[in-house]
Amino acid sequence: MKKLISLLFLLPILISAQHEETIKKIYDESLSNGHVYENLRYLCKEIGNRLSGSPEAAAAVEYTKQLMESYGFDTVYLQPVMVPHWVRGKKEVVRAINSDKHGTFEMNALALGNSVGTGPEGILGDVIEVSGIDEVNELGKKVEGKIVFYNGEMDPTIINTFGAYGGAVIQRSSGASEAAKYGAKAIIIRSVTNRQDDIPHTGSLRYKALINQIPAVAISTNDADKLSAILKEQKLNVYIETHCQILPDVLSYNVIGELRGSEFADEIIAVGGHLDSWDVGEGAHDDGSGCMQAVEAVRLFKTLGIKPKRTLRAVMWMNEENGLRGGQEYARVAKEKGEKHIAALESDSGGFQPLGFSMSGNENQKTKVRAWKDYFLPYRVWDFTQNGGGADIGPLSQQGTLLIGLRPSTQRYFIYHHTPADVFEAVDRRELELGAASMAAMIYLIDREGLN
Amino acid sequence: MKKLISLLFLLPILISAQHEETIKKIYDESLSNGHVYENLRYLCKEIGNRLSGSPEAAAAVEYTKQLMESYGFDTVYLQPVMVPHWVRGKKEVVRAINSDKHGTFEMNALALGNSVGTGPEGILGDVIEVSGIDEVNELGKKVEGKIVFYNGEMDPTIINTFGAYGGAVIQRSSGASEAAKYGAKAIIIRSVTNRQDDIPHTGSLRYKALINQIPAVAISTNDADKLSAILKEQKLNVYIETHCQILPDVLSYNVIGELRGSEFADEIIAVGGHLDSWDVGEGAHDDGSGCMQAVEAVRLFKTLGIKPKRTLRAVMWMNEENGLRGGQEYARVAKEKGEKHIAALESDSGGFQPLGFSMSGNENQKTKVRAWKDYFLPYRVWDFTQNGGGADIGPLSQQGTLLIGLRPSTQRYFIYHHTPADVFEAVDRRELELGAASMAAMIYLIDREGLN
Repeated sequence: MKKLISLLFLLPILISAQHEETIKKIYDESLSNGHVYENLRYLCKEIGNRLSGSPEAAAAVEYTKQLMESYGFDTVYLQPVMVPHWVRGKKEVVRAINSDKHGTFEMNALALGNSVGTGPEGILGDVIEVSGIDEVNELGKKVEGKIVFYNGEMDPTIINTFGAYGGAVIQRSSGASEAAKYGAKAIIIRSVTNRQDDIPHTGSLRYKALINQIPAVAISTNDADKLSAILKEQKLNVYIETHCQILPDVLSYNVIGELRGSEFADEIIAVGGHLDSWDVGEGAHDDGSGCMQAVEAVRLFKTLGIKPKRTLRAVMWMNEENGLRGGQEYARVAKEKGEKHIAALESDSGGFQPLGFSMSGNENQKTKVRAWKDYFLPYRVWDFTQNGGGADIGPLSQQGTLLIGLRPSTQRYFIYHHTPADVFEAVDRRELELGAASMAAMIYLIDREGLN
Repeated sequence: MKKLISLLFLLPILISAQHEETIKKIYDESLSNGHVYENLRYLCKEIGNRLSGSPEAAAAVEYTKQLMESYGFDTVYLQPVMVPHWVRGKKEVVRAINSDKHGTFEMNALALGNSVGTGPEGILGDVIEVSGIDEVNELGKKVEGKIVFYNGEMDPTIINTFGAYGGAVIQRSSGASEAAKYGAKAIIIRSVTNRQDDIPHTGSLRYKALINQIPAVAISTNDADKLSAILKEQKLNVYIETHCQILPDVLSYNVIGELRGSEFADEIIAVGGHLDSWDVGEGAHDDGSGCMQAVEAVRLFKTLGIKPKRTLRAVMWMNEENGLRGGQEYARVAKEKGEKHIAALESDSGGFQPLGFSMSGNENQKTKVRAWKDYFLPYRVWDFTQNGGGADIGPLSQQGTLLIGLRPSTQRYFIYHHTPADVFEAVDRRELELGAASMAAMIYLIDREGLN
């Protein structure tokens, strides 16, 4: 009897030591011989930005497919999906005409994604500044014929910058239609960032049905401050010229690479990021990092000879930025085929130092994952308290899949987000490697322990 | 009786809510209206690097004194201290002479701090590569007349990069004397960094008494790899020319600014960093950040009208990099005057996102501070498990002072450490501000709660 008790006590400890050891191998390999940084370099420097429907997006599909084939994943395939095809066209002009102090001057601007263009004739109008959508509703018909300038800021006191982003981004996503319903002719928004600089931030808007679609641009925070200061002194005319167009949908793909499970092959663990990016910069943090980390996570299994019991899938979703078609199609096909996704892990918060994992799922699933926290503490990954998964994996939630988001440090993300500054050089090698290893360690534990 | 129990239960909760509120004000002010970033800009861009004994070090003393005076601290004063005066002189030359493949080529090099120079005649010698001091001891007299090339690397698998630094830095600090005792004529070291690039990292060495003092230089990791590859193929002659000199000691100062305590003025809480830096780059992370954060921590009390019960001291210590004279003198004077330092908090690990505090002191003190962890969790400062304080506050430990180190993320530190790349632009505003607020919050709690 004594012997049996000892065994019962020893068993969980033995399992735990084995997991600890494997996880250490994962981190060691990622930090010593990692591929993720050089793979990201290729994606950023050889292909560059890759908005849905662009030739570069097609190149990124081909590159990641070949990359996973070169690693000898069991199956690598493309999942077709029709995506929107918005093009920016010729460089935007946002020009103040009649400033007493500054005369005529140009602002650093980017048209918002999905927005209509002014065409070559441009739009000229009086500018009226508002702090947000509430103020537009208060002003009502007073914005008619005007260019509405949304100057709401991200709240710097919110420590998780994504929280502050969530508070400010509504003027970008909904501001155009909210102003158009009172007859505004265009909108200018303060870039959604917590930094004071000359860099404009693009990002998508959504036009509401049955409301006039008006042009929309973002200007840099320095320009927004300048514009606001002038508007306190005088009426100001601004000229906007954008050449954006929405072209017919284009055939594109989610890129999928699989290691087949040895015991429970029908249980799928997906790990990924989105392959598309905005059409400026190189989509390095958003979300080249997440894609290359997902491929690396699965490569680490291959290289270290860790045979998964369940089926691991690295997925590069297409079209997160301006449609989410890839994520939706992936979930639709999964349901249609009767695939069972037990978990989906997304990295889409930049390639910064990983600090935790957020989750969206039932309490049993979350409790099980939270119990693994001690495996991650040696790697400084400590926060398992937050809610949420990721945009692309969101559509899987209806299938009972546990959604997990890699949560890196958020302090520097909005320097780069949706800007020309989101380039390879903005990503730190060790931080990126720690993220890839953390993802591999998480899918390893799910693979070994399951989620029941 | 019932009433009394309720009160007893309520009391600690009320106190806690007040602390929470004050700490939130501290972080809000730092993130919304912080001065630390602009103050660091001045120190880096207007003054620049500031090795002990240099005119720039004197400028930094004057600047920080005036800065604290401008904030209306109760007392601002200079504490005299004699410091070593090492000068680099003319740019180093480290040149490979007879590579079959590359011919003659220059390496990116910096003389090590405190090292002697070769003089204009230089030193020419055969290079012998070793992985560390152990190998020098094995080789013994075989290194006689040679240039010893220490090529030990930082271990990338150690998550806290300071741990990996500690393992590799001994070849920089002790390598020269260890090689000289067998008759080596100079040493070259692989820069102590975990990055592969062209940037050489300086830093101090210590010559052992009664051993010949030989010149010592660091080369970039790319050059170290190149050198090592060539040495596998052929014998290689390298020419080294350095013009370093150790001049007579110079009068310098620790800079001290005080807010006097209202209840326990004789109990001192010191918070600081070191004002000197290496003579390359701008000493932005090392340790302009720590100095400006310490000033900001005390300014936050002034600005928010938080009256300290105990005496708060912002201290900018001089000469951490190549002598530690400032830290030693500060502790000596404190002892001589019978000052009672209950705690000293140093920020000298870069201006990165703060993740925790390390401590060195007795168990009672540490337990008390650890109990405050929940106040910091909303600000993502979570790790109170590590040991250690800081170099400059180290000499206070003999007086029973609790030593505390701000522990930011360490992943990016050794990109910049002791290099021309340690410039203002390498510091992130929000990360720096979070660190300053975390320091202010910690000294606030010590001030209010004491450490008994």
